[in-house]
Amino acid sequence: MPANSGRVLLAYSGGLDTSCILAWLIEQGYEVYAFMADVGQEEDFAAAEKKALKVGAKKFFLEDMKREFVNELIYPAVQANCIYENVYLLGTSLARPVIARGMIAVADREGCDFVSHGCTGKGNDQVRFELAFYGLKPDIKVIAPWRIPEFYHRFAGRKDLLAYAAEKSIPVTQTTAKPWSTDENLFHISYEAENAPQTPEQITIEFKAGLPVKVVVPDSSKTHTDPVDIFLALNTLGRKHGIGRIDIVENRFIGVKSRGCYESPGATILRAAHIDLEGLTLDRNVRALRDQFVTIEFSKILYNGHFFTPEREFITAAIPASQRTVNGVVKLKLYKGNVIIEGRESSEGLYDEQQASMDELGGFEPSDTTGFIAIESIRIKKWAQANIAKGQAGVAPKDVYGSRI
Amino acid sequence: MPANSGRVLLAYSGGLDTSCILAWLIEQGYEVYAFMADVGQEEDFAAAEKKALKVGAKKFFLEDMKREFVNELIYPAVQANCIYENVYLLGTSLARPVIARGMIAVADREGCDFVSHGCTGKGNDQVRFELAFYGLKPDIKVIAPWRIPEFYHRFAGRKDLLAYAAEKSIPVTQTTAKPWSTDENLFHISYEAENAPQTPEQITIEFKAGLPVKVVVPDSSKTHTDPVDIFLALNTLGRKHGIGRIDIVENRFIGVKSRGCYESPGATILRAAHIDLEGLTLDRNVRALRDQFVTIEFSKILYNGHFFTPEREFITAAIPASQRTVNGVVKLKLYKGNVIIEGRESSEGLYDEQQASMDELGGFEPSDTTGFIAIESIRIKKWAQANIAKGQAGVAPKDVYGSRI
Amino acid sequence: MPANSGRVLLAYSGGLDTSCILAWLIEQGYEVYAFMADVGQEEDFAAAEKKALKVGAKKFFLEDMKREFVNELIYPAVQANCIYENVYLLGTSLARPVIARGMIAVADREGCDFVSHGCTGKGNDQVRFELAFYGLKPDIKVIAPWRIPEFYHRFAGRKDLLAYAAEKSIPVTQTTAKPWSTDENLFHISYEAENAPQTPEQITIEFKAGLPVKVVVPDSSKTHTDPVDIFLALNTLGRKHGIGRIDIVENRFIGVKSRGCYESPGATILRAAHIDLEGLTLDRNVRALRDQFVTIEFSKILYNGHFFTPEREFITAAIPASQRTVNGVVKLKLYKGNVIIEGRESSEGLYDEQQASMDELGGFEPSDTTGFIAIESIRIKKWAQANIAKGQAGVAPKDVYGSRI
Amino acid sequence: MPANSGRVLLAYSGGLDTSCILAWLIEQGYEVYAFMADVGQEEDFAAAEKKALKVGAKKFFLEDMKREFVNELIYPAVQANCIYENVYLLGTSLARPVIARGMIAVADREGCDFVSHGCTGKGNDQVRFELAFYGLKPDIKVIAPWRIPEFYHRFAGRKDLLAYAAEKSIPVTQTTAKPWSTDENLFHISYEAENAPQTPEQITIEFKAGLPVKVVVPDSSKTHTDPVDIFLALNTLGRKHGIGRIDIVENRFIGVKSRGCYESPGATILRAAHIDLEGLTLDRNVRALRDQFVTIEFSKILYNGHFFTPEREFITAAIPASQRTVNGVVKLKLYKGNVIIEGRESSEGLYDEQQASMDELGGFEPSDTTGFIAIESIRIKKWAQANIAKGQAGVAPKDVYGSRI
Repeated sequence: MPANSGRVLLAYSGGLDTSCILAWLIEQGYEVYAFMADVGQEEDFAAAEKKALKVGAKKFFLEDMKREFVNELIYPAVQANCIYENVYLLGTSLARPVIARGMIAVADREGCDFVSHGCTGKGNDQVRFELAFYGLKPDIKVIAPWRIPEFYHRFAGRKDLLAYAAEKSIPVTQTTAKPWSTDENLFHISYEAENAPQTPEQITIEFKAGLPVKVVVPDSSKTHTDPVDIFLALNTLGRKHGIGRIDIVENRFIGVKSRGCYESPGATILRAAHIDLEGLTLDRNVRALRDQFVTIEFSKILYNGHFFTPEREFITAAIPASQRTVNGVVKLKLYKGNVIIEGRESSEGLYDEQQASMDELGGFEPSDTTGFIAIESIRIKKWAQANIAKGQAGVAPKDVYGSRI
Repeated sequence: MPANSGRVLLAYSGGLDTSCILAWLIEQGYEVYAFMADVGQEEDFAAAEKKALKVGAKKFFLEDMKREFVNELIYPAVQANCIYENVYLLGTSLARPVIARGMIAVADREGCDFVSHGCTGKGNDQVRFELAFYGLKPDIKVIAPWRIPEFYHRFAGRKDLLAYAAEKSIPVTQTTAKPWSTDENLFHISYEAENAPQTPEQITIEFKAGLPVKVVVPDSSKTHTDPVDIFLALNTLGRKHGIGRIDIVENRFIGVKSRGCYESPGATILRAAHIDLEGLTLDRNVRALRDQFVTIEFSKILYNGHFFTPEREFITAAIPASQRTVNGVVKLKLYKGNVIIEGRESSEGLYDEQQASMDELGGFEPSDTTGFIAIESIRIKKWAQANIAKGQAGVAPKDVYGSRI
Repeated sequence: MPANSGRVLLAYSGGLDTSCILAWLIEQGYEVYAFMADVGQEEDFAAAEKKALKVGAKKFFLEDMKREFVNELIYPAVQANCIYENVYLLGTSLARPVIARGMIAVADREGCDFVSHGCTGKGNDQVRFELAFYGLKPDIKVIAPWRIPEFYHRFAGRKDLLAYAAEKSIPVTQTTAKPWSTDENLFHISYEAENAPQTPEQITIEFKAGLPVKVVVPDSSKTHTDPVDIFLALNTLGRKHGIGRIDIVENRFIGVKSRGCYESPGATILRAAHIDLEGLTLDRNVRALRDQFVTIEFSKILYNGHFFTPEREFITAAIPASQRTVNGVVKLKLYKGNVIIEGRESSEGLYDEQQASMDELGGFEPSDTTGFIAIESIRIKKWAQANIAKGQAGVAPKDVYGSRI
Repeated sequence: MPANSGRVLLAYSGGLDTSCILAWLIEQGYEVYAFMADVGQEEDFAAAEKKALKVGAKKFFLEDMKREFVNELIYPAVQANCIYENVYLLGTSLARPVIARGMIAVADREGCDFVSHGCTGKGNDQVRFELAFYGLKPDIKVIAPWRIPEFYHRFAGRKDLLAYAAEKSIPVTQTTAKPWSTDENLFHISYEAENAPQTPEQITIEFKAGLPVKVVVPDSSKTHTDPVDIFLALNTLGRKHGIGRIDIVENRFIGVKSRGCYESPGATILRAAHIDLEGLTLDRNVRALRDQFVTIEFSKILYNGHFFTPEREFITAAIPASQRTVNGVVKLKLYKGNVIIEGRESSEGLYDEQQASMDELGGFEPSDTTGFIAIESIRIKKWAQANIAKGQAGVAPKDVYGSRI
């Protein structure tokens, strides 16, 4: 193999796959720098660095990206109530853009000709990483070994990797214990509801412009105001109470259905609280438009790795306007997998108890509603008259429930 | 007051309000027939009939609408995963169209000139009932006393109603104990998670074309296959395990924010199971389009009482095509407010374990993904090149998280 | 009638209706100030002022709102390609918010207790004006005579108005000749295509960030760069060439279908040019999202008079992000009702002739597309396999074309 | 090259490219059958057959697909008002599914192992054909020479093809004169507006359930009722009057911008007439939902070649429900590129002249609108009050028009 194929910055995890890739890239004549991002995962970074250098990396870079992960990805997703296919809070997807940006920055600074990663050729992450690379540096060259036939045919199974690791003296014990989730960042990790405490725990979350700015946890007498601290604290709390675990079959961007088990305790709590506060503070029509367009489209954009694209720029431009009034405090109870809303308050003034009351007149004349209904029914009456003329009035939606009745 | 103002069919609940309305309508010279619909609520219908006749109703009609409520409203809503403002499963809204249709049928048959109801002038139900009336019989005349100034000024508070009831010898004890929810039908009623059993309970639900066709409950050795039985059984199970209670601030159709507490145990279980099975059996693009259009629009239609309208007819026309492949079985565990998905299976064949596996090659060539990413990145690269030319590459979405960082 | 009912600012047109309303308001004891907005209509404002004062207005205010009409309403609508029900460019709707804002400013400054207008009780304009009033000054009181039974029963037809005008010595000749359109502002007025010149006329329009910044008209050796001048010049040109006339049945906000004839020569030219330039300069995904959400929703918002609302604020927040790259020049030919695009150019660089060429390889490897198609077809093949297993492959969409074949 | 590579069905056009591909496939050892579809293009099919056989095809198949093209593709697109990126009526896209289905039918019947086409590796048509093949027969094998490096490197330019044609004795004169459009089917072909007749021509089109069922052309005393005849007649008329030519930059499915010139005279007339009739006969809310979802999504599906997919099946399922009331007659005038609507009538009864009239009371009480506006303004007033409390009332949308004013 030729020496001097160029310099590669490899997204390194410390695990078997990327260690073998590291060795293999060297074998192909590349000079390899290893890159790790700290996005909140529980990881022995020092051990990983040691291992990377032992396997042959010329340099090792560890970047702390927790803050931008929280501020630039997680919190905009919270503001927009992002969710994919009704259930998945996008944990893994959210980390990819910041990791990719960190890599491109190092690659630029360190004069790397290539970036490389250990994602498989069937998953979402390869797409997310590479589209982010190209959206930041369109002429970057990417080496994806799991899509290179000579690599994936050579390493057809785990035992081939183990054999290669042995050959290259790569230590095979994993650097950290990873229980269940295969991708771990600060978005993740909880216990099962059944093993969670019997005693509920109350907390309050304060939002400003749709962003969590203060979390108060009376049981531990703690108050969190730093964005990263807030997220970490909610993760710990949610994890303790068995919140935010899902087991789903999802549709990958490449069109393959796959099973995934995810844990997002902190994000689950924040989403519930944020949605609740929007009930009190967000205009109905803004909420409906935001749900249909921003929530759905931004979620798709995040899942598919289209973060550094013009459509992401476009869709997020509307978020701040939707969050201007989302200010207030939500009181929650965490209990065995449940996030139970106990109350909310805000000084925005869009909710008016007297106006809402069924028992008092305040706010507006009930007779106004007669005019409202009269106008709302104009076109419906015309349609009904036409139906009656055709003998089709009040037809049940047979097509919907089919032959059952 | 003039005798012979005409014949009115009154939606009667047996409670104080509609009993007073009944008496008041008679006072205005109307002949009143009372109408009740059995939509699964726990109600002493015999006592209500006795009371209505005592207050002065000339006739009393009780219609059992449980089957059409389940088949024509609840199950299409399950097929479409309907939900309003992210949290509300639309229980009350779903009952209104069948009740209205039952009333119009009786009004037609019995020669009533008017229909009447006891809904307040600030709520959703007045709109739902009346738009349904007009969508079925555009020339029907509606008497809504709570929007008639002479009525609502006379009965400005509960004590005025009580005084009137005393004057008219209307019994004021409620006919049934109604704990918390003010609107009860078979969609509703559960306990709090904290008082729910410590032991989880497993069940399986089988779906055909997106509709639940069999529920098996091993603990009680029961199997349910009738649509109404299925729903009632799930309601009982959900209620027992504290599932499906919410406390929200919602946006009414008339633009007022109001607080509501709702319970939908059976619907919550069905929704979770149905969404899960769709992960396994529904095409990605159909799911995405259905979520964005049918789920959101049908939910809005149901909430706003637009069931007997052309847009409902239009939007539900697409539901069967989205459910053709939603066949299979979901295994669930109910535990203290949680609906935990434990597994699902289907013979639809859209999920392919080998194809999805990250560890084996089966299904397609990983190298194909290289072409996919190359093509997907064409426009992104062009955009990034233009950004770089303008010095704007990799710009963080500052607008999204504002001044915080 | 009581003197001293308060001070009213009346939206005055100089016509029969608002002159009679002016007199009637005085008759009801109001002190009336008359308000006119110059939004580009051909009007003898001096004559109108004279008439208003003669009829009894205490003061007369003429506000020139052309500039804000163009900058704040027309041009955002151009940026978003706004159109209602596929055909209507929203001319009348666009003028309402600036007129309402002008009125509220004068009402505030002059201490008026009420605002009033002469819109009928069946149209869109009453809703547009009043929702704008309330969105700016929620406690303003509105007098809408055409919805007050004592007014509309008294003036049941034109002859009643004429009799009243005679009684009050109100001159009945219209102050200006208004040919066909009943609402005239600078958005409007053209000739029929058949009478337009036989010779086509070429122009170029330059856009920056989606806004027209320069119009060059070689035939008249003129160049326009001021926003208002640009719009007026395009109106004149379009009018000359018979561009932008429509005759439609539209759906009013109140649910009534009505026939309308509209003319929007300048807006029609700008829309065609802007859409064309977006082909060259706007990313595909941004365009698709913008079309589906911003174009449609902003158009609905404008038509329904929801300009001063949170949803308008939300939806327009995304417009600038969609227009950042819409820079360039479009060359057009105007000819007998046609706006023919002859070419466009831009330095944005998203179009790449070599990459687009079917005849050369440049830009990317055609073999990449093989991977793209392979991945795109994964889910389609799975679905087709399932169809074949059920005997449903290649089924024609019989439901669509029904029983015809 | 190996004999017996298998049997290929080649989509043959009679032109240079597919003739060379035919010869090349034979050179690679394939047995080649040639396939042509008659979708209304002006073509000398007999000459093409003769040529194919001369070049070496073993068999030649000509399938008349005009009727299914019109009935299954064009007319559903008319019913849904399909259009891509605001301007393109999808002519080419619409023909692909029927051609692909015809090919698969012949390939099945004739025992072909492969299908092949001459589409370039950068265009839309390769994707449309192949996704259709896979949606009908997921295990079909496709040979796309313009994506095979050994082919496209060998034939790098037109002169290489000409040299190869000479070598293989392939006649190089094109079989028919093709003026401007490169893809011709019955959707296409017109003249420029400037050369069109000076005299307008009136026609009427009658629709049933949104489908054209009768076209009357007084000038030629002709009436057309057959679906294909109707489309051919409108094409001829539109062509004569210079209707339906566009010159655009579009975004291909693969993300490349490309310039295209298209002509769709008949489709342009039908779209204008259909949209107009919907104004008179379609409910407002159905129209709005259909425009936002079905029109936009079905257009995208057609453009991207996703016809034989579950999402197409889903989205078209709603079309008939949207067209049930679209019955009536539209009167049009064709003149120099313009389709001028002169009138429309229908017996559906949704339009009510008296109700719409601004000059008479009929239909409803204007005072009802007061209640409507009162209710519509509830949330707007609350929002405005909150704005005022924050000093933000009536804020102009500065963000929209930027720094210009």
